[in-house]
Amino acid sequence: MPDSPIDFRTEPSRYRHWKLSVESAVAYLTLDVNEDGGLRPGYKLKLNSYDLGVDIELADAVQRLRFEHPEVGAVVIRSQRDRIFCSGANINMLGLSSHDHKVNFCKFTNETRLAIEDASQHSGQRYICSINGVAAGGGYELALACEEILLADDGSSAVSLPELPLLAVLPGTGGLTRLVDKRLVRRDHADFFCTTAEGVRGKRARDWRLVDKLIAPSKLADETRTIAEDVAAKSDRPKDATGIALPMVARRVDGDIIRYDTLTVEIDRERRAARLRVNGPASAPPANAAAVHAEGARFWPLALARDLDDAMMHLRLNETEIGTWVLQSQGDAALVEAYDALLAREAGNWLVREIVLLWKRTLKRLDVSSRSLVALVEPGSCFTGTLFELVLAADRSYMLDGVFEGSNLPAATVKLTSMNFGPYPMGNGLTRLASRFLDDPDRVEALEGEIGQSIHAEAADELGLVTFTPDDIDWEDEVRLAVEERAGFSPDALIGMEANLRFAGPETMETKIFARLSAWQNWIFQRPNATGPEGALKLYGTGKQSKYDRKRA
Amino acid sequence: MPDSPIDFRTEPSRYRHWKLSVESAVAYLTLDVNEDGGLRPGYKLKLNSYDLGVDIELADAVQRLRFEHPEVGAVVIRSQRDRIFCSGANINMLGLSSHDHKVNFCKFTNETRLAIEDASQHSGQRYICSINGVAAGGGYELALACEEILLADDGSSAVSLPELPLLAVLPGTGGLTRLVDKRLVRRDHADFFCTTAEGVRGKRARDWRLVDKLIAPSKLADETRTIAEDVAAKSDRPKDATGIALPMVARRVDGDIIRYDTLTVEIDRERRAARLRVNGPASAPPANAAAVHAEGARFWPLALARDLDDAMMHLRLNETEIGTWVLQSQGDAALVEAYDALLAREAGNWLVREIVLLWKRTLKRLDVSSRSLVALVEPGSCFTGTLFELVLAADRSYMLDGVFEGSNLPAATVKLTSMNFGPYPMGNGLTRLASRFLDDPDRVEALEGEIGQSIHAEAADELGLVTFTPDDIDWEDEVRLAVEERAGFSPDALIGMEANLRFAGPETMETKIFARLSAWQNWIFQRPNATGPEGALKLYGTGKQSKYDRKRA
Repeated sequence: MPDSPIDFRTEPSRYRHWKLSVESAVAYLTLDVNEDGGLRPGYKLKLNSYDLGVDIELADAVQRLRFEHPEVGAVVIRSQRDRIFCSGANINMLGLSSHDHKVNFCKFTNETRLAIEDASQHSGQRYICSINGVAAGGGYELALACEEILLADDGSSAVSLPELPLLAVLPGTGGLTRLVDKRLVRRDHADFFCTTAEGVRGKRARDWRLVDKLIAPSKLADETRTIAEDVAAKSDRPKDATGIALPMVARRVDGDIIRYDTLTVEIDRERRAARLRVNGPASAPPANAAAVHAEGARFWPLALARDLDDAMMHLRLNETEIGTWVLQSQGDAALVEAYDALLAREAGNWLVREIVLLWKRTLKRLDVSSRSLVALVEPGSCFTGTLFELVLAADRSYMLDGVFEGSNLPAATVKLTSMNFGPYPMGNGLTRLASRFLDDPDRVEALEGEIGQSIHAEAADELGLVTFTPDDIDWEDEVRLAVEERAGFSPDALIGMEANLRFAGPETMETKIFARLSAWQNWIFQRPNATGPEGALKLYGTGKQSKYDRKRA
Repeated sequence: MPDSPIDFRTEPSRYRHWKLSVESAVAYLTLDVNEDGGLRPGYKLKLNSYDLGVDIELADAVQRLRFEHPEVGAVVIRSQRDRIFCSGANINMLGLSSHDHKVNFCKFTNETRLAIEDASQHSGQRYICSINGVAAGGGYELALACEEILLADDGSSAVSLPELPLLAVLPGTGGLTRLVDKRLVRRDHADFFCTTAEGVRGKRARDWRLVDKLIAPSKLADETRTIAEDVAAKSDRPKDATGIALPMVARRVDGDIIRYDTLTVEIDRERRAARLRVNGPASAPPANAAAVHAEGARFWPLALARDLDDAMMHLRLNETEIGTWVLQSQGDAALVEAYDALLAREAGNWLVREIVLLWKRTLKRLDVSSRSLVALVEPGSCFTGTLFELVLAADRSYMLDGVFEGSNLPAATVKLTSMNFGPYPMGNGLTRLASRFLDDPDRVEALEGEIGQSIHAEAADELGLVTFTPDDIDWEDEVRLAVEERAGFSPDALIGMEANLRFAGPETMETKIFARLSAWQNWIFQRPNATGPEGALKLYGTGKQSKYDRKRA
């Protein structure tokens, strides 16, 4: 772990770069980056450019608005500055960052953009971007994550993706994919746009679908408000409900053990593995949505999703050499089942909807984590319904057939609930079960008949729900071998393999961004043309010209 | 251009590694690699491993079987050797190759595998793989390209993808994608399989869908023949037709000019650009399919597709610093239109079907070429129907509005034919027009009403068929600037950008292989863990163990 690990926990009173304000049904997220507030020393966040710290605040604000502000139906993203909306990811920061930090940074910012789109599409909190000035690179990509882009028509406000001409890299936050797959910009227009450092403004920006509306600068603020109020009026969020507070996630770090309320992370440096042991609920679920609301952030499914999310981000950024995550659980399966029943029964409630959507995003975060995932289903575990998704997300799973000698814990079982059949689609749009059984969609239907059944190892194997089912005699060797073997492989090749095998079947904008775009960017970030001593990222701002290796690969 | 450029032209009498034999309706492609027949010095092609030269022969054989053997309805791929089917791409060759050669090699072998699948699916020539011995890495990937995989059940014959554990790279020819997206192997089984160097054999191989049939070794030859004969009997190819001969493509190299019968390539090294000028037909098309058959390989659309294909492969492998291909045409648009009408009218004829399918593949080759594509529509050009696909394949296009001063050529027009609306889908399954107008599918339908109309620049612009329409005054500057600007950008970033912008919309196994898999492989090929002095590719066979950088990116 680095000396000063990156902390993903924050709250509005600590924000240094964003202002969050709410005016009845419309929230405003106003960017005003503190130049000297970089996450690391060595660069200044000029011109409303951002680093991971700026995005951690944004992710927090997006999350908070959903839980703390049921009354908000539209969110406006805008800039505090004149003439500059946002100039994107800070270039000096990128130049100073290690490869793995750059890639992890891009992945997190992508996830935040997807969370914005998820709020617009599923949570009734629709994002609008109001651009006064220049939205360049990651600045325009932030706009692309919004459902509507308003641009000041003042002859100088412009949108651009100057990464290729200026920096010899690609837009890192899904910009290329969102251009042609979300906004359906014609490919030749996109080609011109992405090779033109100064970008496009005015009528051409609108005609090419790069923005939705041009507004005279003097009217931008008023019209933005009117549009946002109209959008908010159509939201299905309850205008008279009160939100729940999201206190910062609590954790205790004790050497290589990190303890959350609902989760323990134990790092085994020798095997380069982390054990994530999820704790089932301690007691029966509350009776109904009102009681869920009363529990607030302590409600077990919400607390666990937030703890797990924080643990994953910590491990991703601060424990980059820990290549395998071993997923375990312990607790009472019947209680987990009861919580799932509550989530299903109260799905129409705004808060329950938010909790289920957060689980969806948290599981997707697991899917795209560049770590090998091994699930262990042992006696005493509670991989039921929502928690069984962790097993389905794993690259492979081991379930003990029988009991451990000398233990009085009964044999492990797994259990399906209705939550395995819809609410948690992967990025490819399919449930994890449907992705697993692409060869036989009927099997997914047949598995619905197993809902509520306690499934022992032999049956789980026959149903295809787990990978291997060793008995007590083989268990330790087989599991140890799997984890140790993984630690011996090249991390790069594992990342590429896992990214390919996890997402069979259909592709979506989201899977395209993570696979297609991220993979290319990963490559380009390695190339001397971008990151070598004479590469464009290194020379940016020095006035020197890069000398490119001209060979086309 | 290198001193000894790679030549993609060959014919069976020159094969060193494959034996092609035909027994009535079944053809056999038998692999027997000549160890000393490597394309370059420095490595031995042991254990039926291959390099680009081996694959050039395979691609030639696959092409020839379609045109020269209408009677063949099934093709068996097998090995001449005992106990070894094919051990994949030669590792020493990979270790010695430059990055761009490795990537180009993988791309070409992928295209050959796709041509095999295209023959099975669209040409009534179905491929069957009969494995006696070990099919490892690229050897198994070759099997994956076949519709049916038969494996000797002898306790030692096995299939494997050992790239990750042994070499720290990914299977380079679509193996991961075909496992989970074509054969629908369950992802956890795929994970185990791809991390197990020795592979999987016998019952587990069949149960996991890695192969289709297990056959006792003594019966393998006979059963393979029976299966192939049954498959061939169901083919729609004409058993009594005679094929046409495919003589080697003729070309004359004159410094930086390469002249084909139907095409001229002119290299401008200063601008790092190649002009590909396609010549329209010299005379009216033959009257019907029988007359097409009589013309054989001289039939203009067939000759041009073959010339263009050869030119692209030459430029890809031998002119890696020529980053922009400028697409031009000259000729009589009415004649091109007449040829298209013939192709459409005789679509049911086996030979015409093959010619259209070859155009489809040739245009796809253009789509996935890692070169910037700029189309110029000038007076005297003949971008009609099939040839207009070149304009649609370009990253951007310029069409002169009006005439050149001092020229008596009339203003340029473009023309659509029925060939633009179906026969040439891109890898994503859509026509180039449908991919272009994802924002407005109705427009594609409306454009069908324009079939046969000569469309001038202004109308072409309004219809969205071209990108820019400068007039005589601006033409030279604008076109020159576009080409020169392109030459100034980082080739890596251009490759990544173009690969993203060209394939909006749906994804298929094919686009996944080229984008998702190739991009990851591109990255991994750059990483010290694979290709550094202590990387697994370099140390393979030395007995030394790689020391990996363990950071997960």
